[in-house]
Amino acid sequence: MQQITIASTSTLHGSGYLEYLLDYLSVFFKNADTILFIPYARPGGISHDAYTETVQKAFAKIDKSVTGIHKHSNPVEAVAQAEAIFVGGGNTFVLTNQLYKNNLIDAVQQAVKTGTPYLGTSAGSNICGLTIKNTNDMPIVYPPSFNALALVPFNINPHYLDPLPDSKHMGETRETRIKEFHNFNTNPVVGLREGSWLAVSGKSIKLKGELPARIFEYNKAPYEVAPDTQLNHLK
Amino acid sequence: MQQITIASTSTLHGSGYLEYLLDYLSVFFKNADTILFIPYARPGGISHDAYTETVQKAFAKIDKSVTGIHKHSNPVEAVAQAEAIFVGGGNTFVLTNQLYKNNLIDAVQQAVKTGTPYLGTSAGSNICGLTIKNTNDMPIVYPPSFNALALVPFNINPHYLDPLPDSKHMGETRETRIKEFHNFNTNPVVGLREGSWLAVSGKSIKLKGELPARIFEYNKAPYEVAPDTQLNHLK
Repeated sequence: MQQITIASTSTLHGSGYLEYLLDYLSVFFKNADTILFIPYARPGGISHDAYTETVQKAFAKIDKSVTGIHKHSNPVEAVAQAEAIFVGGGNTFVLTNQLYKNNLIDAVQQAVKTGTPYLGTSAGSNICGLTIKNTNDMPIVYPPSFNALALVPFNINPHYLDPLPDSKHMGETRETRIKEFHNFNTNPVVGLREGSWLAVSGKSIKLKGELPARIFEYNKAPYEVAPDTQLNHLK
Repeated sequence: MQQITIASTSTLHGSGYLEYLLDYLSVFFKNADTILFIPYARPGGISHDAYTETVQKAFAKIDKSVTGIHKHSNPVEAVAQAEAIFVGGGNTFVLTNQLYKNNLIDAVQQAVKTGTPYLGTSAGSNICGLTIKNTNDMPIVYPPSFNALALVPFNINPHYLDPLPDSKHMGETRETRIKEFHNFNTNPVVGLREGSWLAVSGKSIKLKGELPARIFEYNKAPYEVAPDTQLNHLK
């Protein structure tokens, strides 16, 4: 039975890395001692090692050890044998490209299907959707496809932002961008605000955290759903 | 001799469509009576016709007529025969995809090389760079390549935004995103603020408008350049 946590962000303003999620994660990862971390989306100039260290420090607080997939000679096997998987944030295009390069799309899908718990934050959540077409990231590399892991039958827009009422910036709002997506695509999009996550357990998909999420369905007005709403009708 | 105007935006806050540029454009397009408009990036739910009408109204003020490329049965021929070309804003991925689908990449490059004046705004400016890897747009369609028109030997980041000093949003700043681009790419990026444009005439590339631009070169600290600075050293 699949067990997935799809979190908008790793870090809330003024709080430590993964801090707001740790209580939840100690239950979510209760059957795992070691978590396989996939740092491929790594942001900025830090190394995969440095990124993995940040994750190790956070998970040490709930007594989990963490290994970086870049330390394994066979990444496909590392995924197949993992007790649990965490894909961190950074750039979604870089992450997707690296997953394809390392033949990990099928491997992660298989692992999740057979019950390996999966945590994604930000870019690691984007790839849980059907495609990465609702990422907010800059397309700094060209991946072989925008198709993603399709662990849920819709797309994710993490870091969902409401329009700034007094902005003089003429760029599109997030809502406008997602509406434009629906000129070319029909699948739903879940806009996850900072501090929200989707808790997927088998066929159940529940919104968690304190804020509502904004749902965009094809040919429908966008609407809000409250925490603990069941979202398994979306497809 | 190539004649290109690469504008950050079509519309300044509180001003009409293309209004801030019209005086400049009446000189830039002095040898053209009719402008071929490419509406492929069209934003939101409006039709190519409706988008073209907006452009027609703006150019009527400087006595130019405008035809939409979607009205021509042979778009490649339309570009080859155009007196002038304007590519409007919207979504850069949609625009790039449509240019490839209609075999217009070569056609526009050829036309510009032989002196047809080209105006781009926003998405239409993004595609003047080597690649579209510095667009701010959502990747709502998957184009066959991120390679663009390469009319200038660097990339464009239109609508360049400075960091908001008090933001609690944890998303990357524009500067961070462009720095991350340089972890994977080496060409320079010109961050064009709203109301700025590049005036390209043969080998001369000058910054125009009232604001400085921010230049990002590989392995260099970003720096500001003032209006009227010559940028033909960038490559």
